[in-house]
Amino acid sequence: MAHPFFEKHRATLERAVEAIARRGYWTPFPESPSPKVYGEGAPEAGKAAFDKLANQRFALTQPATIGQVGTERSPYGVRFGITYPKVDVDGLMAAVEAAQTTWRKAGPDAWVGVSLEILERINKASFEIANAVMHTTGQAFVMAFQAGGPHAQDRGLEAVAYAWDEMRRVPAEATWEKPQPKGDPVRMEKRFRIVPRGVALVIGCSTFPTWNGYPALFASLATGNAVVVKPHPNAILPLAITVRIARDVLREGGFDPNVVTLVAHEPGDNVAQTLALRPEIKIVDFTGSTANGRWLEEHARQAQVYTEKAGVNQVIVDSTSDFAGLVRNLAFSLSLYAGQMCTAPQNIYVPKGGIETADGHRSFDDVAAAIAQGVDKLLADDARAVEVLGAVVNDGVLRRLEAARALGPIALDTRSISHPQFPDAVVRTPLIVKLTKADRATYLNEWFGPIAFVIATESTDDSLAIARDAVVGHGALTMSVYSTDDAVIHRAVDVAEDVGVSLSINLTRGIFVNQSAAFSDFHGTGANPAANAALTDAAYVANRFRVVQHRAHV
Amino acid sequence: MAHPFFEKHRATLERAVEAIARRGYWTPFPESPSPKVYGEGAPEAGKAAFDKLANQRFALTQPATIGQVGTERSPYGVRFGITYPKVDVDGLMAAVEAAQTTWRKAGPDAWVGVSLEILERINKASFEIANAVMHTTGQAFVMAFQAGGPHAQDRGLEAVAYAWDEMRRVPAEATWEKPQPKGDPVRMEKRFRIVPRGVALVIGCSTFPTWNGYPALFASLATGNAVVVKPHPNAILPLAITVRIARDVLREGGFDPNVVTLVAHEPGDNVAQTLALRPEIKIVDFTGSTANGRWLEEHARQAQVYTEKAGVNQVIVDSTSDFAGLVRNLAFSLSLYAGQMCTAPQNIYVPKGGIETADGHRSFDDVAAAIAQGVDKLLADDARAVEVLGAVVNDGVLRRLEAARALGPIALDTRSISHPQFPDAVVRTPLIVKLTKADRATYLNEWFGPIAFVIATESTDDSLAIARDAVVGHGALTMSVYSTDDAVIHRAVDVAEDVGVSLSINLTRGIFVNQSAAFSDFHGTGANPAANAALTDAAYVANRFRVVQHRAHV
Repeated sequence: MAHPFFEKHRATLERAVEAIARRGYWTPFPESPSPKVYGEGAPEAGKAAFDKLANQRFALTQPATIGQVGTERSPYGVRFGITYPKVDVDGLMAAVEAAQTTWRKAGPDAWVGVSLEILERINKASFEIANAVMHTTGQAFVMAFQAGGPHAQDRGLEAVAYAWDEMRRVPAEATWEKPQPKGDPVRMEKRFRIVPRGVALVIGCSTFPTWNGYPALFASLATGNAVVVKPHPNAILPLAITVRIARDVLREGGFDPNVVTLVAHEPGDNVAQTLALRPEIKIVDFTGSTANGRWLEEHARQAQVYTEKAGVNQVIVDSTSDFAGLVRNLAFSLSLYAGQMCTAPQNIYVPKGGIETADGHRSFDDVAAAIAQGVDKLLADDARAVEVLGAVVNDGVLRRLEAARALGPIALDTRSISHPQFPDAVVRTPLIVKLTKADRATYLNEWFGPIAFVIATESTDDSLAIARDAVVGHGALTMSVYSTDDAVIHRAVDVAEDVGVSLSINLTRGIFVNQSAAFSDFHGTGANPAANAALTDAAYVANRFRVVQHRAHV
Repeated sequence: MAHPFFEKHRATLERAVEAIARRGYWTPFPESPSPKVYGEGAPEAGKAAFDKLANQRFALTQPATIGQVGTERSPYGVRFGITYPKVDVDGLMAAVEAAQTTWRKAGPDAWVGVSLEILERINKASFEIANAVMHTTGQAFVMAFQAGGPHAQDRGLEAVAYAWDEMRRVPAEATWEKPQPKGDPVRMEKRFRIVPRGVALVIGCSTFPTWNGYPALFASLATGNAVVVKPHPNAILPLAITVRIARDVLREGGFDPNVVTLVAHEPGDNVAQTLALRPEIKIVDFTGSTANGRWLEEHARQAQVYTEKAGVNQVIVDSTSDFAGLVRNLAFSLSLYAGQMCTAPQNIYVPKGGIETADGHRSFDDVAAAIAQGVDKLLADDARAVEVLGAVVNDGVLRRLEAARALGPIALDTRSISHPQFPDAVVRTPLIVKLTKADRATYLNEWFGPIAFVIATESTDDSLAIARDAVVGHGALTMSVYSTDDAVIHRAVDVAEDVGVSLSINLTRGIFVNQSAAFSDFHGTGANPAANAALTDAAYVANRFRVVQHRAHV
């Protein structure tokens, strides 16, 4: 008899498993933040739930609590005043290990059933979580709702589906019957038990705490691992709400809630490193800087380490039949969440001799100017602009913006926008700087934030060669090409497949290179330095569990 | 249109994919070295082919050859005089990379088809390879034929089946059609290309060059990676024949033969380390010592590293309804290939108060004496004994045997046996030493060779506790328990699943703990220090390839 939560969600699971096999469009979690979809009053109720959290101890009772921590500050200028349990790591790990003894024996249907129930409850809390994501990351509300809510839930469900699909392929038992030259066959009964690796650590990031965190959380949980969630010190709340829900579901499902725990901490301490090196931790998932990701890969040798680090995303502009569409599309990609998405383009390569379009030749400067104008036009109205740009996630972005202004001729300067609702919000528009091919030392680094370079290359082949070097040497999550020439597209596909980066071709309509759809697009490839795994595929889940067998004569 | 080799072997592949899902008994490669199975004259032809190789340059034409190497010496006392191309690593890697450019684009059906054709040809060369395995490893002929031939081929095919099963689940293309609140849906066409990691390195071992090497070779090859095979300096020939066959098949299949290359080298140089750190090498598979395996895990950071290292295998004796069967079974397990199998038991835990059997109580000393007598009886006849024991693989085993004689009271001393056919062969029977629980510093290390300890414990629970510590601290590939008490069996299963080791229960008949059957038993779990992966499962193959997508508006 499967766990009741498994039975409850079996149909969704089956549909999700079908979705990962087909990779067309599918989601059970509607992305529209409309009361028509989520119920009358749902937005207001979510906002009220969020507002009630301010200046309180967050309602999470965990063992080994030795105080309270929390210094979150909204990029929109609001200080939360929420505090979370500060944990004693030794004590917490002991409690997690104790919880794990029962959980590890519960088996795939319980692990998957509990995971699916958690996801359903998270979906119901989408408005509360959206406000939490908005005010920790600086995303605009609709993006915080979609990317931090349903889209993140999709990615979590996708991970559960992959996990289930891999686990179910190991038979629970087998009879091994070997014919003998004479007499009866030799018969053995075998049992195969799926066991988790141990305890998993999820290290959250400051920009997409749920979207990047859920695949890891659910991939590990659905394969029987207890999960310790360590959020970024300025994006604790979305994951704290997640952990609170997970613990409620675990309790109701008959398990020790310490299967999922939160380690909130203050900026600048070393709790991430301490946790990552604990012998109990057998899996680490990380999203963040290249330096921290590499440190984990180097040092957390007792664990499987999955990292998503920095990258340099690029656009190769060769020619187009829809220059206006190209400009609109790129302008939006550069502006969305002020370029603070790991998938946002940074380098736009344009041949120095210009490009051909349906309306005739455009010079290099024309192209740069058109993109700049496109951004300007998109962000002309402040009230609309802030709903695209959101707020600046941290001061590093501002420092980088200022430094980038000196790198070359400015095609579009960054400007501050006053947020109509949040006077203290720091909102900045994209900076676009023109560079030449020779400025490699500049453009082959990630300039995280609303910073883009339009780079004059010798030719499209030169652009492709630079893009290739950039991906191999520095990593990338996305690449984009614009061309009316099939041979160029073909060469771009070749480069992308050679260096292992996702390629978007001639995006001129309502799909943007930054966007990666669960159940369809693989986010990252694991084949270049930007990430050592993809969200989400078989490789992402298959090594989170092991199979232990026993056998006896019949 | 799939590659012709794929079409040729499609039925076998489908049957193999079914076998890994069911994990019952199956093999397409008969294990009997009988002319009735392999054809009249096959044994003689294989022997003749092997004999012809002696004192020759091995027929392998590879680029970047800068001389000849080869100092193999048969444990049966025969010096081969075979030399192999000595490679310049830089030149070889350039040739491999060049070969890889076409191979990586060929796609799953070509990779899998070529792999299956290679396996079929290897099967046809089973007698030649059996002689090569026998005279490099010291295995007796029938074992060399079975483990080095059909059983190794089974493991290779199993890896191909897992690889195919994972790759085929990624659709080649998808249409993504997202409904819009108003108007037509947004449509994208997506293509998903499976790309290999890069170049794979297989580091062979001296005892089971093909059985341990084939899973790695075929898992990497079937996922599109070029493979560099670096055999142990004293077990080159079996893998050289394998590489020769692989190169022939690649050529016939329309590919550059440098997709599979051999790096033979002399003992004591550092070519394994040099290769393992090359940036082109993205996958390393290793079987061998803990020290070398750990070095690779520590240093080959640019690669996925799969290791099988040393372990301490153990038997927990609690009680039995068939004491004679227990004794016969263990005697054979200790004697087979003179304990030089990575799965051979070393530590036999017996409560100091003795055990209950169907024939009454047996004291600790009775049990030790009975096992000793069982070995003696099994090996009483020299001509028969050598067909069980084979020859000693290297001088380290002899030194260890001598050292182990001083560790405690000897229950059974080792003795030399003259091989009727090979007067220079070094053949040694098992040494059995009695230890007490206190001798942990001794028995918690691997004593590779025909060395077993019968260890007096406080109780069966104590035995289980020691076994648990041993697996966690030192790793194990096998564990075995004898008990008539279901509660004890249950506790043993619990321990095995907790620490991640395969368990065999009450083996008294013709199945031995050392034996692991392809398509049914997972060899290793990847969950304890003896190995970081299992042969063969989804996790073993899923990370050898990546998926790279591109997408465009429809």
